[in-house]
Amino acid sequence: MTLNTQAPKDQACLIVHGPDKPGIVAAMTALVTRNKGNIVTLDQYSDNPEGGEFFQRLVFHRADLEAAMPEIEADLADTLAPLGLEWTLTNQSIQKRMAILASTSDHCLLDLLWRHRRGELPVTIPMVISNHTNVAADVRSFGIPFFHVPSQGPDKSEAEARILELVQGNVDFIVLARYMQIISEDFLDDVAVPVINIHHSFLPAFIGAAPYRKAKERGVKLIGATSHYVTKDLDEGPIIEQDVTRVTHAMTAADLQAHGAYVERAVLSRAVQWHAEDRVIRQGNQTIVFT
Amino acid sequence: MTLNTQAPKDQACLIVHGPDKPGIVAAMTALVTRNKGNIVTLDQYSDNPEGGEFFQRLVFHRADLEAAMPEIEADLADTLAPLGLEWTLTNQSIQKRMAILASTSDHCLLDLLWRHRRGELPVTIPMVISNHTNVAADVRSFGIPFFHVPSQGPDKSEAEARILELVQGNVDFIVLARYMQIISEDFLDDVAVPVINIHHSFLPAFIGAAPYRKAKERGVKLIGATSHYVTKDLDEGPIIEQDVTRVTHAMTAADLQAHGAYVERAVLSRAVQWHAEDRVIRQGNQTIVFT
Amino acid sequence: MTLNTQAPKDQACLIVHGPDKPGIVAAMTALVTRNKGNIVTLDQYSDNPEGGEFFQRLVFHRADLEAAMPEIEADLADTLAPLGLEWTLTNQSIQKRMAILASTSDHCLLDLLWRHRRGELPVTIPMVISNHTNVAADVRSFGIPFFHVPSQGPDKSEAEARILELVQGNVDFIVLARYMQIISEDFLDDVAVPVINIHHSFLPAFIGAAPYRKAKERGVKLIGATSHYVTKDLDEGPIIEQDVTRVTHAMTAADLQAHGAYVERAVLSRAVQWHAEDRVIRQGNQTIVFT
Amino acid sequence: MTLNTQAPKDQACLIVHGPDKPGIVAAMTALVTRNKGNIVTLDQYSDNPEGGEFFQRLVFHRADLEAAMPEIEADLADTLAPLGLEWTLTNQSIQKRMAILASTSDHCLLDLLWRHRRGELPVTIPMVISNHTNVAADVRSFGIPFFHVPSQGPDKSEAEARILELVQGNVDFIVLARYMQIISEDFLDDVAVPVINIHHSFLPAFIGAAPYRKAKERGVKLIGATSHYVTKDLDEGPIIEQDVTRVTHAMTAADLQAHGAYVERAVLSRAVQWHAEDRVIRQGNQTIVFT
Repeated sequence: MTLNTQAPKDQACLIVHGPDKPGIVAAMTALVTRNKGNIVTLDQYSDNPEGGEFFQRLVFHRADLEAAMPEIEADLADTLAPLGLEWTLTNQSIQKRMAILASTSDHCLLDLLWRHRRGELPVTIPMVISNHTNVAADVRSFGIPFFHVPSQGPDKSEAEARILELVQGNVDFIVLARYMQIISEDFLDDVAVPVINIHHSFLPAFIGAAPYRKAKERGVKLIGATSHYVTKDLDEGPIIEQDVTRVTHAMTAADLQAHGAYVERAVLSRAVQWHAEDRVIRQGNQTIVFT
Repeated sequence: MTLNTQAPKDQACLIVHGPDKPGIVAAMTALVTRNKGNIVTLDQYSDNPEGGEFFQRLVFHRADLEAAMPEIEADLADTLAPLGLEWTLTNQSIQKRMAILASTSDHCLLDLLWRHRRGELPVTIPMVISNHTNVAADVRSFGIPFFHVPSQGPDKSEAEARILELVQGNVDFIVLARYMQIISEDFLDDVAVPVINIHHSFLPAFIGAAPYRKAKERGVKLIGATSHYVTKDLDEGPIIEQDVTRVTHAMTAADLQAHGAYVERAVLSRAVQWHAEDRVIRQGNQTIVFT
Repeated sequence: MTLNTQAPKDQACLIVHGPDKPGIVAAMTALVTRNKGNIVTLDQYSDNPEGGEFFQRLVFHRADLEAAMPEIEADLADTLAPLGLEWTLTNQSIQKRMAILASTSDHCLLDLLWRHRRGELPVTIPMVISNHTNVAADVRSFGIPFFHVPSQGPDKSEAEARILELVQGNVDFIVLARYMQIISEDFLDDVAVPVINIHHSFLPAFIGAAPYRKAKERGVKLIGATSHYVTKDLDEGPIIEQDVTRVTHAMTAADLQAHGAYVERAVLSRAVQWHAEDRVIRQGNQTIVFT
Repeated sequence: MTLNTQAPKDQACLIVHGPDKPGIVAAMTALVTRNKGNIVTLDQYSDNPEGGEFFQRLVFHRADLEAAMPEIEADLADTLAPLGLEWTLTNQSIQKRMAILASTSDHCLLDLLWRHRRGELPVTIPMVISNHTNVAADVRSFGIPFFHVPSQGPDKSEAEARILELVQGNVDFIVLARYMQIISEDFLDDVAVPVINIHHSFLPAFIGAAPYRKAKERGVKLIGATSHYVTKDLDEGPIIEQDVTRVTHAMTAADLQAHGAYVERAVLSRAVQWHAEDRVIRQGNQTIVFT
């Protein structure tokens, strides 16, 4: 299904964060070296050099990584506990499994499927789920399974239960590619994987229905899109990526929407790629993005 | 004072707006032709081809324009009244007089003064007024008069009265170049000329004090600036121009502010130039900008 | 095949160009009015207000346009000949027929097909021709006919002859969507319709093979794309649109190429849309683009 | 002269480059730790994970840095020689001394002086040298010494000798802020400090005189600027930064030049800032820029 996406062999990504103090980077790099890893990239950030929070992303190559993982993890546990640091070690030769939830519009969905087919998104896509069927043929033409889960009526619990059945145990993160349905807190709790959303325009500038019409009425000269992790506060979750495009008075609200679609697909695709490559670290309501 | 700014000789700008109907453009262009004008540029826009509002900006060259103005104006009155159209005819060889109100920060102020000295802003600048004195020497080094009008304390009426004395009859529009003071409704009524403001970032996203700190806390990936006409609703007036710049998690709130300053100066300078060139038409809370 | 693309009903586009002189715009708009047209948009440009070349794009609505075309054309001929002006009148309710020539890469091709399906490109697409077969299934999934015309070996005359057979009489313009083959002068002469190309990066900065490798070696910080009309001077034809994206030292030549692909598809799609909407006027080796 | 520019106290920047091999980062960070430094930022890049060239920029804080420098340098020499690495250790609390060479145009010059006054450029500016005198008053109003070194006639050796006298021993790098004179190889050899230039538009697209006129004739839709280190191949040196701005057919060559000026000042100021902050590493004809 994802033959043309290449996962980097024998490559691990180590994310570390916690209270900043002298010697952390030295300790991390020494650990990698003694575990026979060779550092490919290292990014670090401290939100305050004096007593702040420290974040590190370290990608290393290690022959026979899979066999060595338990050993490296044990060393990490021993080394990092005394420093009060949290860590995640990811074997990047195993691609993350991504489910896409879509509705009727196809611009974000197709851009993801197409970038994936080009080998630019290091993920597998076990399923696309939509509450409509109009994108089914497109999705299947990419060799990706499509599931229709209707969500009519105010009560979304049945639809969410059905989606949960499909994704649980089968995916590592979910992308809402213009899914247009509110996700319940319960669903977020139960699914327990990151959910990435794309939002039109300048939230919270134009909240609610018909944002492009409101933007038109306000006479904005830029429209944009924001991709973020979904939290219980809906569209207020940690921002991963944003971008804008210029518009003019001569464009109708429909024109704004068409132009907005191109920004949306680009912003969501970049956010998904960075998440898939373990480049995004969540910290409270912010993100550290090591691009 | 403005030796190096060239005003186009014998050039007029005709702004027309009102209910759209067939034949308006033909009537306008025929009028210009029979008054011996040659059209330099013509832009027009209708917000709805069927029964919408029509806007036109027509710049024409006419030898001995000044002498012919009364005659052309009489023809305009005769021609446009039957069509229900409003119009403004501006002799562009007479530069608009612009007052700048500033506070302590100099980035927008200096960019305006410098573009003016380069001959890129077709205005005269009879005065810069500030509630502080730190920019006085800079302003005067450009050959521009500087007036200090302090505005301490909650009651701004005395400061506004003093500003009114200075500008009334002497300026055609006012630019708030990071003036940082709320302008009263009374002042707007009394001054009776357009007032252009520059506003940080994504209004109304981060209202009130310390917007860059709030933007930092929200983890935005873009910061921007908006230039708009001042209305009684403060920062909600018709938008003239907007732009953004990319920022990252690694930037402090102070970094965001520094980067924001470059966007602010560029956005305000463009807005001022377009206003000075009669390119901006206000329509309700929107603008038509013929660039 | 192009059900979802809407052509504007009863709408004509009049392009006029020739020596600038007073009264042209008035004459044109009077002509439209006396032919019962209502101006939708009017753009004009003179490359020199004194004795320069004049260009005008005038879109008007006219009930029962098709029936009135001969009459309007006769009026145009009578009116414009004395002024020494050339003109083209296009019935925009008849969509232009566009052939796409592609090779193995699909990014530009699919973006065109997809925008077309969304109803954003006012064209019909009677055929896609490729010298390879890998995109056949994708093309046909959009309901568009696909023809395979191999072009191996140095002699391209047979392939060009076959393409000519397919397109002649059937298309109004041709788009080279990363076709990667040199088009002969003879083919351009024989096909006698506009041909639009997309070119990587900063021509003529990195001419010839492997431009992204050369750009990498030169350490550029921006890569771009240019869409232009094809002339006998290959990549030197009149530019329609250009854009760039930022790159860094950390990107490989392959990364540059991947990023370049996103710029290429956006630039080509915009250029095609503007051509299809009669917004581009060629003047020598330049273009006037009324966006 | 540079009161408002703050140099970071007790902060050093260590640049290391040489053949990539496992353990370099670990060795570097261990070295910093055992010398009581705390890492502020660390960036690294390898142009090929297998046997490529390795580059690292490591900024660290160390109390009483100045006193400890010899000790740290000795440790670096001992540690890096066996690894075949080259290094530079810079005490960032000592600001670099920057000379600016200008000619008649002021846009790049004033932007540098103004950013410096705002405290955004961590340099001192001991002098501005120009072959004309029109910017003298502006420069001195910033409290910066101005020297006039005429350079008429084809023989530039006298002017270069005079410039050499002024800068030698007094500056750490030189910025050509639209200096418009060719710099001789001998001068580059003798001055022996980095020289940064700003170049219009898309080199090598429009070489030689009147590039904006050529760009206008070619009908480009973007114009840009490139800042680079000066080498014997003139405008072919390693690129530090580039940017572009959109232009249209309606702009004259003079308009292009005016718009180009805004890109030039922004690109040069960024390049100078990055150089001043030790963020740029030269590698052959490329740069690694750790922003």
